[in-house]
Amino acid sequence: MIRHPSFGSEPWCLREHTLDLDVLAETESLFALSNGHVGWRGNLDEGEPHGLPGSYLNGVYETRPLPYGEAGFGYPEVGQTVINVTNGKLIRLLVDDHPFDVRYGELRSHERRLDFRTGLLERSVEWWSQDGRGIRMRSTRLVSLTQRSIAAVRFEVEPIDAAVRIVVQSELLANEALPPAGATPRVSALLESPLRGVERQAGAAEASLLHRTERSGLWVAAAMAHDVDGPAGTQVTAECTEDLGRVTVVATLEPGETLRLVKCVAHGWSATRSGPAVRDQVAAALAGARRTGWDGLAGEQRDYLDRFWQGADVEVEGDPAAQQAVRFALFHVLQAGARAEGRAIAAKGLTGPGYDGHAFWDTEIYVPPVLTYTAPDAVTHALRWRHSILPAAPERARLLGFAGAVFPWRTIMGPECSRYWPAGTAAFHIGADIADAVVRYVDATGDDGFEEEYGLELLTHTARLWRSLGHHDPEGRFRIDGVTRPDEYSAIADNHVYTNLMARHNLRSAADAAERHPAAARRLGVDAEETAAWRDAAATMFVPFDRRRGVHPQADGFTDHDAWDFAATGDRYPPFLHFPYVNLYRKQVVKQADLVLELAMHLRGDCFSAEQKARNFAYYEALTVRDSSLSACTQAVLAAEVGHLGLAHDYLAEAALIDLDDLKHNTRDGLYIASLVGTWIALVAGLAGMRVRGGTLHFSPRLPEGITRLAVTMAIRSRRFRIEVGGDTATYLLLAGEPMQVVHDGEPVTVTVGDDVTRPNAPLPRADPPTQPVGRAPRRHGTGT
Amino acid sequence: MIRHPSFGSEPWCLREHTLDLDVLAETESLFALSNGHVGWRGNLDEGEPHGLPGSYLNGVYETRPLPYGEAGFGYPEVGQTVINVTNGKLIRLLVDDHPFDVRYGELRSHERRLDFRTGLLERSVEWWSQDGRGIRMRSTRLVSLTQRSIAAVRFEVEPIDAAVRIVVQSELLANEALPPAGATPRVSALLESPLRGVERQAGAAEASLLHRTERSGLWVAAAMAHDVDGPAGTQVTAECTEDLGRVTVVATLEPGETLRLVKCVAHGWSATRSGPAVRDQVAAALAGARRTGWDGLAGEQRDYLDRFWQGADVEVEGDPAAQQAVRFALFHVLQAGARAEGRAIAAKGLTGPGYDGHAFWDTEIYVPPVLTYTAPDAVTHALRWRHSILPAAPERARLLGFAGAVFPWRTIMGPECSRYWPAGTAAFHIGADIADAVVRYVDATGDDGFEEEYGLELLTHTARLWRSLGHHDPEGRFRIDGVTRPDEYSAIADNHVYTNLMARHNLRSAADAAERHPAAARRLGVDAEETAAWRDAAATMFVPFDRRRGVHPQADGFTDHDAWDFAATGDRYPPFLHFPYVNLYRKQVVKQADLVLELAMHLRGDCFSAEQKARNFAYYEALTVRDSSLSACTQAVLAAEVGHLGLAHDYLAEAALIDLDDLKHNTRDGLYIASLVGTWIALVAGLAGMRVRGGTLHFSPRLPEGITRLAVTMAIRSRRFRIEVGGDTATYLLLAGEPMQVVHDGEPVTVTVGDDVTRPNAPLPRADPPTQPVGRAPRRHGTGT
Repeated sequence: MIRHPSFGSEPWCLREHTLDLDVLAETESLFALSNGHVGWRGNLDEGEPHGLPGSYLNGVYETRPLPYGEAGFGYPEVGQTVINVTNGKLIRLLVDDHPFDVRYGELRSHERRLDFRTGLLERSVEWWSQDGRGIRMRSTRLVSLTQRSIAAVRFEVEPIDAAVRIVVQSELLANEALPPAGATPRVSALLESPLRGVERQAGAAEASLLHRTERSGLWVAAAMAHDVDGPAGTQVTAECTEDLGRVTVVATLEPGETLRLVKCVAHGWSATRSGPAVRDQVAAALAGARRTGWDGLAGEQRDYLDRFWQGADVEVEGDPAAQQAVRFALFHVLQAGARAEGRAIAAKGLTGPGYDGHAFWDTEIYVPPVLTYTAPDAVTHALRWRHSILPAAPERARLLGFAGAVFPWRTIMGPECSRYWPAGTAAFHIGADIADAVVRYVDATGDDGFEEEYGLELLTHTARLWRSLGHHDPEGRFRIDGVTRPDEYSAIADNHVYTNLMARHNLRSAADAAERHPAAARRLGVDAEETAAWRDAAATMFVPFDRRRGVHPQADGFTDHDAWDFAATGDRYPPFLHFPYVNLYRKQVVKQADLVLELAMHLRGDCFSAEQKARNFAYYEALTVRDSSLSACTQAVLAAEVGHLGLAHDYLAEAALIDLDDLKHNTRDGLYIASLVGTWIALVAGLAGMRVRGGTLHFSPRLPEGITRLAVTMAIRSRRFRIEVGGDTATYLLLAGEPMQVVHDGEPVTVTVGDDVTRPNAPLPRADPPTQPVGRAPRRHGTGT
Repeated sequence: MIRHPSFGSEPWCLREHTLDLDVLAETESLFALSNGHVGWRGNLDEGEPHGLPGSYLNGVYETRPLPYGEAGFGYPEVGQTVINVTNGKLIRLLVDDHPFDVRYGELRSHERRLDFRTGLLERSVEWWSQDGRGIRMRSTRLVSLTQRSIAAVRFEVEPIDAAVRIVVQSELLANEALPPAGATPRVSALLESPLRGVERQAGAAEASLLHRTERSGLWVAAAMAHDVDGPAGTQVTAECTEDLGRVTVVATLEPGETLRLVKCVAHGWSATRSGPAVRDQVAAALAGARRTGWDGLAGEQRDYLDRFWQGADVEVEGDPAAQQAVRFALFHVLQAGARAEGRAIAAKGLTGPGYDGHAFWDTEIYVPPVLTYTAPDAVTHALRWRHSILPAAPERARLLGFAGAVFPWRTIMGPECSRYWPAGTAAFHIGADIADAVVRYVDATGDDGFEEEYGLELLTHTARLWRSLGHHDPEGRFRIDGVTRPDEYSAIADNHVYTNLMARHNLRSAADAAERHPAAARRLGVDAEETAAWRDAAATMFVPFDRRRGVHPQADGFTDHDAWDFAATGDRYPPFLHFPYVNLYRKQVVKQADLVLELAMHLRGDCFSAEQKARNFAYYEALTVRDSSLSACTQAVLAAEVGHLGLAHDYLAEAALIDLDDLKHNTRDGLYIASLVGTWIALVAGLAGMRVRGGTLHFSPRLPEGITRLAVTMAIRSRRFRIEVGGDTATYLLLAGEPMQVVHDGEPVTVTVGDDVTRPNAPLPRADPPTQPVGRAPRRHGTGT
């Protein structure tokens, strides 16, 4: 199960003491640095060995043709795939005759440490070459949160016991060869050397490369500069070829002498500006960073993170693994979104090429619930990215025959890139997911200007889609047919509960927002007739219920379907790799908890009674195989609500450790950002029982055995707010801002700065323990029941 | 609408007086000759111009990879595509300096004539070259129905008014270049030169070529021999290259002199025998044919067809177009199936490469209802082909997770070749369609030996599939979820009426057959428990009914779906080329009449009241766009039953003229065999009202205005039987065999040879005329209402 070395559970860092080459790619993802614009995987400085070399710029992709055995109208024909930009991490080392390569010689000590407070990735190594020369090497790497284009490395090398001749080659490398991917050979070939060299320059300890992508036509530039500090006689030269910029430093080091260099790298790209403009922009960013210097960059990084943690920290006492995991998660989520500024937060952030670098619905449903309360600016950026791809979405709606906007199920820069429409185009719920993120963000921040300028348009387009996707049946019920739900083990069903309830929220929110911003609404052509039609569709929205079984079917007919034979499934998980869709779709087997998601996170309790929630949870718990990394946190939330705290703890742990323990065997391709935030969701919406109703925070806190204290800090409407949950009581604290009201177990509570309020936690509801499919129960982590 | 010259409505032939190069490909399909083993498109003898050169051997294909943008478990990865075998039709002509090519010089007269009684395609031409040399050319072509490997051409050329030097080049040509197809360039390239030359031989007036296909590894052989009759001095030579066998005849003809040659061509292939064996088999067939000679071959052809028409002719008085069309149809259906012997009857027979040469469900549902009563041996062969591909079908069922057998939705030699599973693999109804053909054939022929040896196994495997596909819900109803119906504008629905009723028939028929053949059943592992389970599933089969609307939904929820906006569809037909599946599937729009098909042809009236039939017909008539060529005949049958005789006549005409008038714009790729038989079905099941219930023929005849008499001869249980329908009465005649009972409008009638029975036709039920979607009413053809 755990394929890489378990890291010690330190509260503020992730540290590795040994280097296991078998899980090198996984650790490259875990140690990835990013600021949402530039992403550097945690590759070794010397480039090799590597699991998967990765350097990304948010928004840089190459196109590729999407093949179909049988074409169909409206199928996307061109896909977008994230590509590696010029690699600026590389610092190769020659120790006398021998290249420094951990596969040869002897690696006597090794440590890598990612510090969540400093934002630095530190590496230190003691290595003996095959002919017995020992060196000590330390590198410290950052991707700047304050200077968006900049990454930097401080590199030090010294001999251990005898003089050595050292040659350092610090490089910019374009079109680096990648290990073979799973894609078809033809596609791999298309993406193999995606960059065409246009211009290059070398001088002093500097070099820069300008490239352009072949088909997507993007300009991609990188530049590097070095400050070298070595003993007398140290030589520095620089040179360039089309795909390589190289600065070479030669020195002979006596014991006690150190060669130090600081490498600043600037990255940039553009689809609209000219090549020279991009080249110059990168040079300018580099000049700025050199002036700031290493200490300045590291200092800014620390300040930025201090501010973040002040408003976002989560303390978990009694469960060190969860403590570490939630900070690891918050750190990486921040990295994914902090400086995205007009670009998407992709499923894997900028930590790897998984999912082709595409953004999905998790950008709106999983990530914003966390960032909204911890780094709200990042949410603005993500939603403005959605708004920026709007031009394509109404066009796609028209192509498909609908009104409003159809947002892509997966994309980098806007066009639909899904290649299997029953699980792509038909997942219309993404529109309502976006609407949900808009409403949540505006609720939490009171950002009226955003709502008027961006939010209303997103809400209007998505509401129009629902109005045209659905229709009233003769009984007057508003039906939405033929859609695919988040649970992708069913597809193209009628009246899907998640979709219909989300659409209802979308329709109502759009009408509310239009009424709050009448002038903006008029500009969008929204009149009173249209908002009335939205409200009417919302009011009559059909939500199927199976009276015989006393549960909600995921969609019409679902609970009448045949049972999946879990006993016969054996170890054939995930099922979609071992069973055909034609069998999965017709049976009751659930990939991820989508009905539960609705119950837990969006409905604010209005639509389901407590008894229904408990029954639904028990029913779907027995059918859910949790193939999706998005599932565990959702299950944790509802497990906690209906009274299964031990189970909630187990699901919390699964969400927390999915990438740290590589539970889904895909950490090599990057970290699953939405799953990382699931740790926060499981703690805050799960154990603290946080729900947002009409802009007010409701809590219903209860800790499982083993967790003795949970403290969460968050931002809401310009306030800094904190909840501290103990075994018996919860305390609400306002750290900054005007007094505010929260609700504790149904009771309104007003908190003022300096005037904390403590309340007893409500008793646990009694419930029979649910069962999971054979072999699909979560790993036990907590100690309670 | 009519893109090719309308042919005169001659009762026993199809004749063309002018040559329209714009519709050359279409006429090549119409004038195609075949015996079910060898197929020659009606290409001009001289090879060029051509629409689409075509020479086929039933079962010869090449494989190709099937690409998927997003792969899925169980998706077929290798497809089969029909390829051209060696072209043996070619006879080029040089007239003095000029190649005979109708695009140059002057074509003063032209006629092609396909005679349904002689089975010959005759062509006569008067042509003047650019330098004023006139010739008269006559060719007569046959593909022998009695000598399965043999085709032959009698070729005559003479000068019109002055002596000419004539060079005839009679060829075998492999890997002939084809015009660019619609497939992706990569696939086209793979199939461009599919034959690899292995051996060649030339001698006297003979040549032979042996090839092998690259990936499918099939041996393909062709040989030709000539009898030449020309004036003194006529020279004959022969030569060979890898892809060409050529016999050259040189003669100088004075006016009044004629050069005649008879070309015999033998074709053969094998996947299992060796190359030399196939080569020798072809040489042997050729030797036999030469001994028979042209007159012998033509005489056998005439005899074969005389016997066929004696037992199969349909006379239609008052509608010469329908008269011609039904004989054209019967002739081509016979050509498709007569000598298939262990191979499929593909959708396009051997008349063109349409649908990749694949066989679909029409092989069982459309073709057998006609052939069973006109050429029952051909049905045996088609069903034995299905039986022969059985080994792959249970394997595919296991792969997909089901019991029994899953037959391919489309294939040439057995493996599933569909590339879009919602409209391919999910069309499980094909199993029940096969079962239906088995039962129909055994009912009509009493062929117990076939049932025991082949039929029972087909019934057992398909029944087992249904038992494992379906399940009982808590109310005890047997449900079949997640299947695709014949109407491909919906997919993956629950409790599809057509599928469930066909499955019920399949389950019951399997149980009945197992009880009739206990020993064979035991060998297949069928015991009393299993047949009881089949009968139980059949007895509790769920058939949804929409009480509010008083109609059957095609499948669960269908009638609750939104209306399709036919008014806004404009001329965007067929919809699937202009609208995405994601929009089509969720609305009430019907590609082809599948519920009506059930009503009309399979249920034998037991499951639906007359009122339900009328309501259902009216409801679905308003939703059916009739994109499929299979739809019109079915609609004709039910229109006649519920009392819309004029409409039935219009649909009859549409079915009859689909290829003759190229109504679907795909006649160029071959004739749609199932649509051709639709002409017979519309006349016999429609106007004569024939249904088969428990092996007994029921009739309910009524003629529309304009058709004054309909006479149908057919074979049933070793009898030759005839019904003659007039305006007021119907007469039943037994032409040969033991006395038999038929049912006339509910009244049993016994007919004996020489003792005809005449009964009055029942009055027409009253019904309001139905409506079709805007612009989708059939072209008016009849004169009645």
